Amino acid sequence: MAETDQAPPQSDQLAAMNLTDSVEKHAFSDRVLIRSIVGRPDGGAGLSGQKVRAGGWVKTGREQGKGTFAFLELNDGSCPANLQVIVDAGVAVLSKLVATGTCVVVDGILKVPPEGTRQKIELRVEKVVSVGEVDPAKYPIPKTKLTLEFLRDHLHLRSRTNTIAALARIRNALAFATHSFFQEHNFLYVHTPIITTSDCEGAGEMFQVTTLISESEKLERELIKSPPPSEAEIEAARQLVSERGEAVKQLKAAKASKSDITASVAELNKAKENLSKLEERSKLKPGIPKKDGKIDYTQDFFARQAFLTVSGQLQVETYACAVSNVYTFGPTFRAEQSHTSRHLAEFWMVEPEIAFADLQDDMKCAEAYVKYMCNWLLDKCLDDMEFMAKSYDKGCIDRLKMVASTPFVRITYTEAVELLEEAVKGGKKFENEVKWGIDLASEHERFLTEVKFQKPVIVYNYPKGIKAFYMRLNDDLKTVAAMDVLVPKVGELIGGSQREERYDVIRERISEMGLPLEPYEWYLDLRRFGTVKHCGFGLGFERMILFATGIDNIRDVIPFPRYPGRADL
Amino acid sequence: MAETDQAPPQSDQLAAMNLTDSVEKHAFSDRVLIRSIVGRPDGGAGLSGQKVRAGGWVKTGREQGKGTFAFLELNDGSCPANLQVIVDAGVAVLSKLVATGTCVVVDGILKVPPEGTRQKIELRVEKVVSVGEVDPAKYPIPKTKLTLEFLRDHLHLRSRTNTIAALARIRNALAFATHSFFQEHNFLYVHTPIITTSDCEGAGEMFQVTTLISESEKLERELIKSPPPSEAEIEAARQLVSERGEAVKQLKAAKASKSDITASVAELNKAKENLSKLEERSKLKPGIPKKDGKIDYTQDFFARQAFLTVSGQLQVETYACAVSNVYTFGPTFRAEQSHTSRHLAEFWMVEPEIAFADLQDDMKCAEAYVKYMCNWLLDKCLDDMEFMAKSYDKGCIDRLKMVASTPFVRITYTEAVELLEEAVKGGKKFENEVKWGIDLASEHERFLTEVKFQKPVIVYNYPKGIKAFYMRLNDDLKTVAAMDVLVPKVGELIGGSQREERYDVIRERISEMGLPLEPYEWYLDLRRFGTVKHCGFGLGFERMILFATGIDNIRDVIPFPRYPGRADL
Repeated sequence: MAETDQAPPQSDQLAAMNLTDSVEKHAFSDRVLIRSIVGRPDGGAGLSGQKVRAGGWVKTGREQGKGTFAFLELNDGSCPANLQVIVDAGVAVLSKLVATGTCVVVDGILKVPPEGTRQKIELRVEKVVSVGEVDPAKYPIPKTKLTLEFLRDHLHLRSRTNTIAALARIRNALAFATHSFFQEHNFLYVHTPIITTSDCEGAGEMFQVTTLISESEKLERELIKSPPPSEAEIEAARQLVSERGEAVKQLKAAKASKSDITASVAELNKAKENLSKLEERSKLKPGIPKKDGKIDYTQDFFARQAFLTVSGQLQVETYACAVSNVYTFGPTFRAEQSHTSRHLAEFWMVEPEIAFADLQDDMKCAEAYVKYMCNWLLDKCLDDMEFMAKSYDKGCIDRLKMVASTPFVRITYTEAVELLEEAVKGGKKFENEVKWGIDLASEHERFLTEVKFQKPVIVYNYPKGIKAFYMRLNDDLKTVAAMDVLVPKVGELIGGSQREERYDVIRERISEMGLPLEPYEWYLDLRRFGTVKHCGFGLGFERMILFATGIDNIRDVIPFPRYPGRADL
Repeated sequence: MAETDQAPPQSDQLAAMNLTDSVEKHAFSDRVLIRSIVGRPDGGAGLSGQKVRAGGWVKTGREQGKGTFAFLELNDGSCPANLQVIVDAGVAVLSKLVATGTCVVVDGILKVPPEGTRQKIELRVEKVVSVGEVDPAKYPIPKTKLTLEFLRDHLHLRSRTNTIAALARIRNALAFATHSFFQEHNFLYVHTPIITTSDCEGAGEMFQVTTLISESEKLERELIKSPPPSEAEIEAARQLVSERGEAVKQLKAAKASKSDITASVAELNKAKENLSKLEERSKLKPGIPKKDGKIDYTQDFFARQAFLTVSGQLQVETYACAVSNVYTFGPTFRAEQSHTSRHLAEFWMVEPEIAFADLQDDMKCAEAYVKYMCNWLLDKCLDDMEFMAKSYDKGCIDRLKMVASTPFVRITYTEAVELLEEAVKGGKKFENEVKWGIDLASEHERFLTEVKFQKPVIVYNYPKGIKAFYMRLNDDLKTVAAMDVLVPKVGELIGGSQREERYDVIRERISEMGLPLEPYEWYLDLRRFGTVKHCGFGLGFERMILFATGIDNIRDVIPFPRYPGRADL
């Protein structure tokens, strides 16, 4: 039974609910939320005697007392707990109500059940207002133990299960926690573009956005309906032009009347127009338009090649370098053929960017943000977290508490490598070799946070060779001011850096990495004009949910997962 | 001078600021926000004598007193007001500080300026910590009056202007107001997919998302590097297989030793393998893969055709029909060749969906939401709104107040048409004919809200012929339970409906509209199993900003506008 209130703190409704013993009606519906009954600290007992309308979906239903009444466990998604509902056979046809998944709206009176039952309150139905029936023989997700994998084939119904509904509430809570954290700290939410013509880190893994294919298919259909003119048709039209031209010439030579000449010229012009139309149509070719053997992107919607963004960072920097503190929170995309439990083709990222701030500030912000989210879940979603602990990951609540209360360890990359080398000497086996210069593998990261320190670890100052061009070069000229936040269960949760604000240095770094300068000229302008020390990071939102809940597969923590071969709905 | 506090109400920092006369340092930077000085009710006067570090960009700078000191108007984006900064020539080279766009970080002491000046406080600089210089001859947006149109060609720098910065703060405020409103009312934020294989309302205007083109270009490059085998090469390989086969046969016939036969068979297998590799490669064709004359989408990333979403409604309904109250707030896309000031190819939509609720509840929710946003801006962004009123639309603040306080008029479509017909009889001229059955044009909508009622108007119960299949059929069988919210300045701000929850009726409506059933089977499942009365609406987020600010062109109220021919950055 949920003892906590998972509503946002501003909720006037719930504040009111805690002060009085009456149930608030939902603001935009004629029913009450089930949470406003069973989510109370007293489990709803104080509401006994009140008349309410409730609606929800039957989780479990059974006829009892030889069919004289039915028990329904009703859930409306407002909290993990169900409302127990009792319907007498005189009130409705019980067999229509008891199937799992049935939607019912009922009027009734709240009563404290007989002692010895689990519930603190139950609803005695006086009237069944409406029923959305279910044929249990056909219902794709009947009340049997369904695997998360099976549910992925039924995306449109899986939110009716306890797990996916709990994950929806947790995801919602983390999203609002994100906005609340950054708003409290005076960051502006900036919507960076989804469609982009900039490539953040080198092409190859981007989805292309185009209308060329649909336009060419449209043209193809059009050409089938009315085929382009044959050479003979064009020749005939050409012939007509020349005949008409001859006619005009003759009339002029014969000094014919002005009106005759005008009429003849008009005929000529009509013939010319017809010819040019035919010639234009004869050029139409099915297929994607090409020029010099290459696809002609000037004919695409944006008059150039366009892609789905892989990160809003570069664009959000333009706002950081103008209004100081900003963040973006939106979908990002990778067209990678990754069939792992940790990768999606479409996922959400949170990317703050802070002006007048350096790598130390960046780490401070990242730590404060992660702690804030952990506390938020413990405050507002404890009932859902208890469900996750019971069903998936015993340690998930303790992990949240630990991360919320423990200062994050901070070590340099060089120190991290030394620690890993020590571990190897001590007999620890890694699949990937450890030496200075490597990119830390997931096994290394998890060893540091789960085994060595058993708490969150921030690793900073990475070798420049394995990091992006925009990260600030340290004075040693070997490392850059980058940092990764590692947490137990998922490893890397956040990656960030101080950005290179020195024009000459960043220009040099772009060239050094073999990237062309031209596409980055706008980005260089931020350093050319009124440059500012700044930093930022990115948090993979689904990773945060995996970390919080202990769920194993990233496809289960996003409502509509997209991965190679699948984009249902 | 800003007299209001535009921070979110939860801000501990600002609460603290209003109670004590000391300046809070920014949590993740060593400087203070300029708003925490000039945004105070006393304009900062109470902070006189305090030592602070401030950073920002110079809006205006000028050397004075024959070069003995300089005035800088410093802005860090935290509020529209600037901090006046005074630097003596002994402290820094003044000429490097005064150019518009220069970024400076300074330490100094706050002082009340001499009487008769506009400022309530100014900063006397003791040390210039850092300078990001600007060469005014090269700076693309120097301090002259720049048109919004000109700024659209400099997306990466335009947020440094007063107008675009104010719009960023207003947009941020409206986004957080949106989340706050729905969270307060117990709606869950659901991330609907950006990449979709469902088509909400009939194809034709969708962007395609694909890797087919980049894959085919990759193949093309690969084939140039190592061309496919010629017919002769294949023939030679075939020949080799047959020779090796013959050799094996002969050895067997000659009863050769086992090891000789095994060796020979191994040779044969090698030749066979080589042949099949060559044959495989010979099938590789440059260009997009086709099958039966059509593009073979089974080879695309998602193994089928995929698009950018035009609306999250259908998908978010799957959550409404499971957890009751949900909303989505994300980017949506239209590949329309619209070159107007009201259309974008990428724009943000807010789409709530409410279970156990009908059209009346829908209208109630829409009205409450719009009023909430108006009040939010008046509460938290009054300084920015005053800037908009001064610079763009005198009436914008009064409009917000009016909408926040006036009950919305509700009329049926039929009544609306009668009112328009009356107006026509009275001499009013419309470009589009008025008669029952038409879709109301923008001129009709604006007449109703701006002239006839001079307040927001909700028109509901539209003819079914002009509305989508999922809108609930009314008992008259002629109209559907749809509603549009019309407001002065922009006309239609919101469109919504009660959804058709009756399985037979919606099936019939899909067929009636000539749509195929198969793609909607998942959507029909929501009605087949545990169906529920529900409704929802969509608000175009940029339209809300246009309405609030009086800005004319939608390209100026989104940070990175996308429209035909343009997708900068």
